[in-house]
Amino acid sequence: MAARPRGKADLGAFRLEEAPIPEIEAGEMLLRTLWLSLDPYMRGRMSDAPSYAAPVQIGAVMTGGTVARVERSRNDAYQVGDLVVAMSGWQEYAVSYGSDVVKLPAGLPRPSYALGVMGMPGVTAYIGLLDVGQPRAGETVVAAAATGAVGSVVGQIAKIQGCRVIGIAGSAEKCAWAVGQLGFDACVDHHGAALTESLAAVCPAGIDVYFENVGGKVFDAVLPLLNVHARIPVCGLISLYGEAGKPAGDSAQAFMRTVLVKRLAVRGFIVSDSYAARSAQILRQIGTWLQQGRINYREDIVRGLENAPRAFLGLLEGRNFGKLVVEVSGAQP
Amino acid sequence: MAARPRGKADLGAFRLEEAPIPEIEAGEMLLRTLWLSLDPYMRGRMSDAPSYAAPVQIGAVMTGGTVARVERSRNDAYQVGDLVVAMSGWQEYAVSYGSDVVKLPAGLPRPSYALGVMGMPGVTAYIGLLDVGQPRAGETVVAAAATGAVGSVVGQIAKIQGCRVIGIAGSAEKCAWAVGQLGFDACVDHHGAALTESLAAVCPAGIDVYFENVGGKVFDAVLPLLNVHARIPVCGLISLYGEAGKPAGDSAQAFMRTVLVKRLAVRGFIVSDSYAARSAQILRQIGTWLQQGRINYREDIVRGLENAPRAFLGLLEGRNFGKLVVEVSGAQP
Repeated sequence: MAARPRGKADLGAFRLEEAPIPEIEAGEMLLRTLWLSLDPYMRGRMSDAPSYAAPVQIGAVMTGGTVARVERSRNDAYQVGDLVVAMSGWQEYAVSYGSDVVKLPAGLPRPSYALGVMGMPGVTAYIGLLDVGQPRAGETVVAAAATGAVGSVVGQIAKIQGCRVIGIAGSAEKCAWAVGQLGFDACVDHHGAALTESLAAVCPAGIDVYFENVGGKVFDAVLPLLNVHARIPVCGLISLYGEAGKPAGDSAQAFMRTVLVKRLAVRGFIVSDSYAARSAQILRQIGTWLQQGRINYREDIVRGLENAPRAFLGLLEGRNFGKLVVEVSGAQP
Repeated sequence: MAARPRGKADLGAFRLEEAPIPEIEAGEMLLRTLWLSLDPYMRGRMSDAPSYAAPVQIGAVMTGGTVARVERSRNDAYQVGDLVVAMSGWQEYAVSYGSDVVKLPAGLPRPSYALGVMGMPGVTAYIGLLDVGQPRAGETVVAAAATGAVGSVVGQIAKIQGCRVIGIAGSAEKCAWAVGQLGFDACVDHHGAALTESLAAVCPAGIDVYFENVGGKVFDAVLPLLNVHARIPVCGLISLYGEAGKPAGDSAQAFMRTVLVKRLAVRGFIVSDSYAARSAQILRQIGTWLQQGRINYREDIVRGLENAPRAFLGLLEGRNFGKLVVEVSGAQP
């Protein structure tokens, strides 16, 4: 990261640097990045505003989850050729102590799935929808960013629970895919006019669970349609991530009035709070659903680490279509 | 109710009317009001904005909980002289079918307690604090309106749970009473300057549960002090009840950002959602705590139905000190 963006991030926030491949010492291993995950939370790490994790320092390697191969090892727990999931960031090689990686889950259709449906985003969708959202069969669930890494899994798990599932996405093509390939009951393009009215038309019984990872105008459109006792798992607010000032819209007090009148349950959650304790079991369940064809998954693959900044900026504007991953040296044997 | 107030309510919203005492038919009984409860929620019933209950119609009797005595009965379940809790409103006599009243709980120090600590406000405090707030021993709980009917019980139950309890109240006298008579660890006057700083000084470990029944500047002052994973039971927003327009302050989106970063749990609740199923058991527990001297209780008694409007307007401005009840014919044998 070359500079801390104020407001909307641009390419000037990043710099490509070359350095020698590091030597390893006893207990360490050298990782070669095969796949890099690009996720909205990274915009938060670029800011030094108070948050739940420390910011990336200027001049430091951008943070990020990876699938990597052990190239050299002086660590007894890992052999050359092992594939691991690491938080080794936007770089081709990294040194690991072993304790900061996990082996890839078994039975992955592709290694990069460990960065999406079979990794942090999949577990995020599962915990946020089921623990926080607590959907019951027959209820209406709305998933924003419906074709994204998290939203697509939220919607499909909600279908498995017997819910009516409505997506919100950023193009007619994405909406068609959410309905045709993910099995959503309907999907509304948020670029269209009268978003509340469009949503109301496909949510005749109101909204019982709104899985929030967008914020802004989508939140505003959903709010009037929430039913009494509706639940809002707050996973992310991508529409706000580029905003420097105070966002506009309704006041917090007006929102609290709605919370009271409708007895809403609003809960923010971060998957890392419970990832260690629960991910293994949840990934087994998601893996089963994938094998059974009950969860469909789409990746948006960018080739070459040098293209990560542009792809990441596109992610913040919804230009990706599916889980965004960078093939750093994924084609290598 | 003579007129629907816009913004701040005044005496013009009410009118005193005389009418003959109604006759009763088979299955009915005539109630004589001994005590009338005055509660903040009544301001909501005066408004026709969408809410969780229907508004009082203009020209109709103001809604309200009462303790009443059966004066005449053609209902087999009730005898003349029985005391009941009713929702018979701001009037001296009312007709009941019996199904809309409950007998007074046993062992009340005074009948009017059934309108406060041993009634709806007590159950509200219990459910909101324990079910929604889920305080753990050693955590810091902040109760706004600390000497009010609900806040005073919230704080004392939180002390029984082993929490550090901080009150917020509207005068030095109220604060002294919260600490001296209710056992709060500290209490801050919200009329003082720098409310956040004053609160921070008595909440060195931050705030884990904020029981919200005030809103406005108190909410704004508490927000920066909330800990990660803090919980906000939203019971009421009395500071907003008189406001006609959109309240000022932070935007809902900025608040949602805090919900996300701090993983807050915010939940609105209305005691009537669970009152029927749970109140008997909860009132037994509160009754035990009262007998043991672990819960202290203070009433602010106004005499005469004609004084209810002025007392109610004072309640909205925090001029009461303790649970506000009107002795309508309480001195009668």
